[in-house]
Amino acid sequence: MRRRDPESLLAAARRGDRGALARLLSIVERGGPPAREVGRLAYPLGGTAYTVGITGAPGAGKSTLTNGLIAVLRSRGEEPAVLAVDPSSPFSGGAILGDRVRMQDHALDEGVFIRSMASRGHLGGLALATPEAVRVLDAAGRRWVLIETVGVGQVEVEIAEEADTTVVVVNPGWGDAVQANKAGLLEIGDVFVINKADRDGVDQTRRDLEQMLDLSDLGEGWRPPVVATVAARQEGIDELWEAVDSHRRHLEQSGILAERRARRLVEEVREILLARVRRRIDAVCEGPAFERLHQRLLARETDPYSVSDELLAAAGIDPEPTAGEAAAPAG
Amino acid sequence: MRRRDPESLLAAARRGDRGALARLLSIVERGGPPAREVGRLAYPLGGTAYTVGITGAPGAGKSTLTNGLIAVLRSRGEEPAVLAVDPSSPFSGGAILGDRVRMQDHALDEGVFIRSMASRGHLGGLALATPEAVRVLDAAGRRWVLIETVGVGQVEVEIAEEADTTVVVVNPGWGDAVQANKAGLLEIGDVFVINKADRDGVDQTRRDLEQMLDLSDLGEGWRPPVVATVAARQEGIDELWEAVDSHRRHLEQSGILAERRARRLVEEVREILLARVRRRIDAVCEGPAFERLHQRLLARETDPYSVSDELLAAAGIDPEPTAGEAAAPAG
Repeated sequence: MRRRDPESLLAAARRGDRGALARLLSIVERGGPPAREVGRLAYPLGGTAYTVGITGAPGAGKSTLTNGLIAVLRSRGEEPAVLAVDPSSPFSGGAILGDRVRMQDHALDEGVFIRSMASRGHLGGLALATPEAVRVLDAAGRRWVLIETVGVGQVEVEIAEEADTTVVVVNPGWGDAVQANKAGLLEIGDVFVINKADRDGVDQTRRDLEQMLDLSDLGEGWRPPVVATVAARQEGIDELWEAVDSHRRHLEQSGILAERRARRLVEEVREILLARVRRRIDAVCEGPAFERLHQRLLARETDPYSVSDELLAAAGIDPEPTAGEAAAPAG
Repeated sequence: MRRRDPESLLAAARRGDRGALARLLSIVERGGPPAREVGRLAYPLGGTAYTVGITGAPGAGKSTLTNGLIAVLRSRGEEPAVLAVDPSSPFSGGAILGDRVRMQDHALDEGVFIRSMASRGHLGGLALATPEAVRVLDAAGRRWVLIETVGVGQVEVEIAEEADTTVVVVNPGWGDAVQANKAGLLEIGDVFVINKADRDGVDQTRRDLEQMLDLSDLGEGWRPPVVATVAARQEGIDELWEAVDSHRRHLEQSGILAERRARRLVEEVREILLARVRRRIDAVCEGPAFERLHQRLLARETDPYSVSDELLAAAGIDPEPTAGEAAAPAG
């Protein structure tokens, strides 16, 4: 068996080999057929990992809070994994990026697996690579996966909200809660943290958050708690943990966890399909056949729709309308 | 020949029938095979329309400026068309939306064709429907198409920057130029307008804009001019027109217009392909076969990648890796 064979890497990772786990995550990060092969093997072995997303503006203290949650989990005998997802960074793997430094408390702890993720060549981007990475960690037996998103763009928010429990971090100060609302963070938070609560303005920020929560739709029977922390001094971390844990219990007991995961799976399959097809479309749009069609298009000897028929066929995609297309609203 | 037959509608629109033109745009807006048929017929008939995109924050005065440009074009004997693109609105067609009211100066002028566009059912969204609508207006003989985007999200910016000349509108006041820069507007503007220039802060805003332009890459040999206007009083509109027209001459004489349009055409073909494939993928992900696979997935009897193979085949897409996939970085 070859050393980098996904099957043997996975077996090694399940026995606790951190190097094998890291190599599997690198494969996933690069995407393409090898990543699919890893996913194929990992998926049936998983099902026990619980994911916690941690998001908020840069500088809010996400890494320090993640650090605190790691400490709580370690004290309970858990061996958590952390994915630090940074769409803006080309670095990944073992690289210690900016905030990662603050997680060094646990850098030498064999029970904690910390990994930075960047998009690299993955065609579906990090929004697709992250659940794939979670699946590998799940198959390797990690029961808790903390997903910290660095930055606060659309992709980061999407990734954080795909977690089972999403923690949104704000700081005290005029308008911070309002900013969080504007960025759509209020809709995705299951737990809110006002970190750096030793600063002025905590009460106002809490009032703002609670008021906005009063107005939002709590369809799933869960009112997101607002926890004040000073993560740098480990204050409030136990309360944060308690909030995360009771959200987990709520999801499990209500059956919402299973429903959410079932829905998410559909979305993931759809994303996998789109990423695979997008790759093919990119390939035909860069080939020599395309150049010829492009010249004819520019001369208006053909049109973009006839060209799209030819290119679909070239990509192994039947250009004839399927039932799905026929079902579209008629013109 | 049926009354709503695309071919006869197009012939009527070319003879100046505004109702036929409106019906063609409705077909385009709804998307699907009928929209493709319209595009197929319209594309070879076009090639003379010049597009001007007008974008900026809500309330900046885009509609009033558009109104002013219409007046200039009418005084030169042109018969311009206006597309008011609003991704956030479900209304389209003849509906007079908010700002549209300000264009009523020209509402009774048969020489001006004004149309609101909303996304409706178009699967590629307005980013795909807008160039399709331009193609129809082009085929119908409109030599100038003004594309005003309502709002300032990512889609609006994308649509505006696809125009031949993009006009970015800001207002005087502290930080407005900086905001435009943050939103990526500085990169896409070919002409900048400081509208409401009777207010305080025009000089500072102009300095901010010029300073930021000093730092940006003017790769195409064009330094975007900054024009001050008070659109509500028609002040500065002639200068704006002069700026737009000299940008057009620059693009034409340098050959950049032809290059840009050739590149845009490639992008459009790619978007058409993606929209067609996305529609199919949505269809298979909603079908009864999917439900069965979903249950097996939840039971972990299969995995998302094997399921994606089956679904691709069901959608008429060959799941075997093509040259494009094989060329991806190996894991």
